[in-house]
Amino acid sequence: MPTPVPGPEDALVKVKSVGICGTDSHYWKTGSVGSFTIREPMILGHEVSGEVVEVGEAVSNLSVGDRVTIEPGAPCRKCRFCKMGRYNLCPQKRFMGDPPTNGAFAEYVSWPSDFVFEMPEDMTYDEGAMIEPLAVGVYSVNRAHITTGDIVMIMGAGPVGLMILQAALTAGAGKIIVSDTDDWRLEKAKSFGATATINAKEDVLARIQDLTKGNYVDVAMEASGSREATAQAVKVTRRGGTISLVGVYETGEFTYPLLDVIMKELIVVGNIDGANVFQKSLDLMASRRFDARTLITHHLPLDDIETGFRILEEKKEHALKVLVHP
Amino acid sequence: MPTPVPGPEDALVKVKSVGICGTDSHYWKTGSVGSFTIREPMILGHEVSGEVVEVGEAVSNLSVGDRVTIEPGAPCRKCRFCKMGRYNLCPQKRFMGDPPTNGAFAEYVSWPSDFVFEMPEDMTYDEGAMIEPLAVGVYSVNRAHITTGDIVMIMGAGPVGLMILQAALTAGAGKIIVSDTDDWRLEKAKSFGATATINAKEDVLARIQDLTKGNYVDVAMEASGSREATAQAVKVTRRGGTISLVGVYETGEFTYPLLDVIMKELIVVGNIDGANVFQKSLDLMASRRFDARTLITHHLPLDDIETGFRILEEKKEHALKVLVHP
Amino acid sequence: MPTPVPGPEDALVKVKSVGICGTDSHYWKTGSVGSFTIREPMILGHEVSGEVVEVGEAVSNLSVGDRVTIEPGAPCRKCRFCKMGRYNLCPQKRFMGDPPTNGAFAEYVSWPSDFVFEMPEDMTYDEGAMIEPLAVGVYSVNRAHITTGDIVMIMGAGPVGLMILQAALTAGAGKIIVSDTDDWRLEKAKSFGATATINAKEDVLARIQDLTKGNYVDVAMEASGSREATAQAVKVTRRGGTISLVGVYETGEFTYPLLDVIMKELIVVGNIDGANVFQKSLDLMASRRFDARTLITHHLPLDDIETGFRILEEKKEHALKVLVHP
Amino acid sequence: MPTPVPGPEDALVKVKSVGICGTDSHYWKTGSVGSFTIREPMILGHEVSGEVVEVGEAVSNLSVGDRVTIEPGAPCRKCRFCKMGRYNLCPQKRFMGDPPTNGAFAEYVSWPSDFVFEMPEDMTYDEGAMIEPLAVGVYSVNRAHITTGDIVMIMGAGPVGLMILQAALTAGAGKIIVSDTDDWRLEKAKSFGATATINAKEDVLARIQDLTKGNYVDVAMEASGSREATAQAVKVTRRGGTISLVGVYETGEFTYPLLDVIMKELIVVGNIDGANVFQKSLDLMASRRFDARTLITHHLPLDDIETGFRILEEKKEHALKVLVHP
Repeated sequence: MPTPVPGPEDALVKVKSVGICGTDSHYWKTGSVGSFTIREPMILGHEVSGEVVEVGEAVSNLSVGDRVTIEPGAPCRKCRFCKMGRYNLCPQKRFMGDPPTNGAFAEYVSWPSDFVFEMPEDMTYDEGAMIEPLAVGVYSVNRAHITTGDIVMIMGAGPVGLMILQAALTAGAGKIIVSDTDDWRLEKAKSFGATATINAKEDVLARIQDLTKGNYVDVAMEASGSREATAQAVKVTRRGGTISLVGVYETGEFTYPLLDVIMKELIVVGNIDGANVFQKSLDLMASRRFDARTLITHHLPLDDIETGFRILEEKKEHALKVLVHP
Repeated sequence: MPTPVPGPEDALVKVKSVGICGTDSHYWKTGSVGSFTIREPMILGHEVSGEVVEVGEAVSNLSVGDRVTIEPGAPCRKCRFCKMGRYNLCPQKRFMGDPPTNGAFAEYVSWPSDFVFEMPEDMTYDEGAMIEPLAVGVYSVNRAHITTGDIVMIMGAGPVGLMILQAALTAGAGKIIVSDTDDWRLEKAKSFGATATINAKEDVLARIQDLTKGNYVDVAMEASGSREATAQAVKVTRRGGTISLVGVYETGEFTYPLLDVIMKELIVVGNIDGANVFQKSLDLMASRRFDARTLITHHLPLDDIETGFRILEEKKEHALKVLVHP
Repeated sequence: MPTPVPGPEDALVKVKSVGICGTDSHYWKTGSVGSFTIREPMILGHEVSGEVVEVGEAVSNLSVGDRVTIEPGAPCRKCRFCKMGRYNLCPQKRFMGDPPTNGAFAEYVSWPSDFVFEMPEDMTYDEGAMIEPLAVGVYSVNRAHITTGDIVMIMGAGPVGLMILQAALTAGAGKIIVSDTDDWRLEKAKSFGATATINAKEDVLARIQDLTKGNYVDVAMEASGSREATAQAVKVTRRGGTISLVGVYETGEFTYPLLDVIMKELIVVGNIDGANVFQKSLDLMASRRFDARTLITHHLPLDDIETGFRILEEKKEHALKVLVHP
Repeated sequence: MPTPVPGPEDALVKVKSVGICGTDSHYWKTGSVGSFTIREPMILGHEVSGEVVEVGEAVSNLSVGDRVTIEPGAPCRKCRFCKMGRYNLCPQKRFMGDPPTNGAFAEYVSWPSDFVFEMPEDMTYDEGAMIEPLAVGVYSVNRAHITTGDIVMIMGAGPVGLMILQAALTAGAGKIIVSDTDDWRLEKAKSFGATATINAKEDVLARIQDLTKGNYVDVAMEASGSREATAQAVKVTRRGGTISLVGVYETGEFTYPLLDVIMKELIVVGNIDGANVFQKSLDLMASRRFDARTLITHHLPLDDIETGFRILEEKKEHALKVLVHP
């Protein structure tokens, strides 16, 4: 691939660390995610840090040599969604590694400089690559309107779930209950501050009733992508509570207990990517209130990225986040 | 049935007009609504107006002879839901005509006086009986956070849908599109101010794209109880829009396009009954901004209530609201 | 003045109607508004309609000959305020007629095409020039979170107050009480739908207690710019109510009853210009739910604009909105 | 004083620890707080823990011997404020130690049992007495809508300010800057997690510009009651930010820069006491996410309470919270 040429408002970044996300794996396996389908060869990857090696003539916020992390969705800035601050919903948005926009499993990426953020000196490139998944967690937690002391349930203890766990703790959750089918991941959840964990093979509703003394949870964050967990989220949430959907990538329709949504007056909130949280997520990572390092389980050279996809698919080894390095 | 004896904080009301609601019909047909099941003979009815004939010793807001309408859910006032202002979610709530609380298809009802509201002189008892369904509409519209000029779709042009239509217009909807399978009801919707109507047997999504010039609707209010319409609401709503569920009474699970909820970042809001809107709904009815009379299609004596249930079930005649009078 | 040359994304508009706003008058009299001060000769005017006579090469939403109205603040699209949807707070925003950006009291203006909106065929240029003040009203009413049936007080029955009055009615206000010192303006308020009016020389608080049966108002919208009215807004609002500040242009500090803000748990909301409401305001004007014509009291040729400023300053004649036409 | 006799729904509590609040001191000094004035001898005190020694016949949530803390405002449960969940605004509310309701500087208090909360075994009575001021902090922070990573300024490092500091940290504040005139208190603030402190005698605005790199603060929490700080809060807050008023007890009017509130589109939020946060505040204290002990600087027997008032008034000794014990 030729090195991209930055436009007047772009920064050219030499990639240092890139994470493999669940959506990358999904594209790799199936060729599509939601309504996006890959139709010709392209580069995936959108969790990225690196070094600025060139800037366009109109760029003033960055200089060559800056160590940076990148917010991977570049919107049109003119549609009604951009204007109302919901640029993640922009239909013209170029998102790194969503077709047809090439991603960051590459040596260089060129990107609009106001979506490129300087990292503080003591932040590593690996941490920088973890800002994007953290931002997804922070964004979904903000939208779930957690109030101080709320009981929060998180379904799924993968990288997204564990970022949400840390974001929910930061946002004032009083108790956090995490469910997953993998006991090793549940142990990780505990080490990140979960108050209690539930193996999803147990009777989850009974466990929740017990753990909350019959009060159920105030907010359920679905980060597993499992159809069962998605329906279960409705059952474990108290009247008037909130359900946040972060992790569903399976296509097709869902069997959903909508009558409970009505009878309990729940609010169900969809989330896709994020907006307006990148700088604050970076600042929180810099303040050491988040632990990215424990989430990183594997490092691979870019040439060996297929091994990374296989590790994540086969789940043979204990794997959370796999980083690749060009 | 013996006449109830009011407690110290209750008012005894001689019933004048009572509407038959969809839930009454549902109980009459199946014996249950959602999680409520009738296990022994009881009185239904919760859309009620009448005259105060006796007040308890501690009642100061009402006097004998007052013409009143009644908010039909009486909560415990002590649980966390009552304290947070969501008394419609109170697990101890007595709701008129929900088992085991007797309702208003009777000569007299006794009810806590602070849930009994005096009507202005020029409001008829029939209008008074229509405050409750209006309040359901106002409540759901408030929770849908319509902003001025929004394009709103209402699915279902029955009594609830037509009340929502009027409430949505009052709340600032710019365009209102109503769908139903019954052309007579769609005509009614037009007379109440609908901008456009769609027969649900048409290609609803295509019509919406056309009517909104591809922008889709900002808010969809589901008031039909139809499984198809419930799923369709997700399809017709723009990115970042809101779906309000008001009219689903069928039990069992729903096939629901949750992936769209996520990819479009929708918010889905459940609604049950209402809270804190009765006085304002009454004031709005008094100000003639709502038309209750056009909704009332049949009057019957209380003895003939079964005819009312049959009219509603068989839909042989053009029927919207059936009122009974003891 | 030379005719401006549109950039690739701009439209050149031949001005047809321009309103004189209170801020224009204020600049004309004092040379400054808030923190903006005019330091060299410039053109005022930002309530404008006209005809597209040229478009830049990248413009696709407009064509030569289109009849249009203009949203007068053009933001940078890159700062955190723009990204969060609050582009009216953008520090780099060019606002027509705020120094150093020239305004629309001119034959031509060039403006970014996505802030130029096509008018429907049956909308007049005069109505088009009134979209901007209407949008200010709609924006402030949206931010005041009026719920259906609220009692709303509007202080000041000038053009802004009367637009807010119409916007508040549209947004579901149940009763609207308007105060002003000018009885002619109060009559206008009644003709626009005010439930009651108060001459501000009366005992306003006593009148409010009387009109609301001691309940006070849910929302007070301050659109007079008077120091007395601004403090009074705190007194007339019920516990837990909202105060919206729209019309204060006097510099210096205010004597403000902050203790009442605390003891009554009020929320005080500042408003400046508006954002994300222009298209919807235009649609509402098109649907004839707003009456702009009654607000327009004077027409003048552009050459005679000083007469317009004098009419507004001296208030000799009954004047609301003065339009000038190049 | 005779021991009070509990009603059927009350619990009689033997007082163990009571804090002296700023309002108690204010009553002691001046005889009034806001609109409340003491007209005959009465008992103050509303930050209280103790042991249940008797319960009314209708009480089911408590038993004799329970160790408890008390939410000190008992509302009417029937007015519109109670119904909408804002029972702290109930005009009929009895608030411990606000005339004419006697408070907890006494051996026994009787109180509605649903406003009496059982403490976990390992929570001390002194911690129990601190739940009320913590709840004030949690409530004001919830109402300030802090989002994850926000820069928060707290004005005033007294007991309320330091509770707000902990509540703001818990709610996700990224950086917290605290100002006060007392360096010892600022040291305390640092030990509780403040990112930076400012002695209010410095140029506060310049320090804020410096500390925030010109971004100003997202949220300012005013907990000092100082007129200067109250106005300053407007200056240090960024465009579109929020100001929360928690600590103003001085009567009279305030000189307030309202034009900045408008030009920057600030939201100013009043707070009085709190609602719906007591159980969650207790749970958070139980989870050791709050440190109450460091705030308690003095213990006195009830007989010696005047010494407590003097310590707080004269500020001779380093004093934060003074507890008295009957």
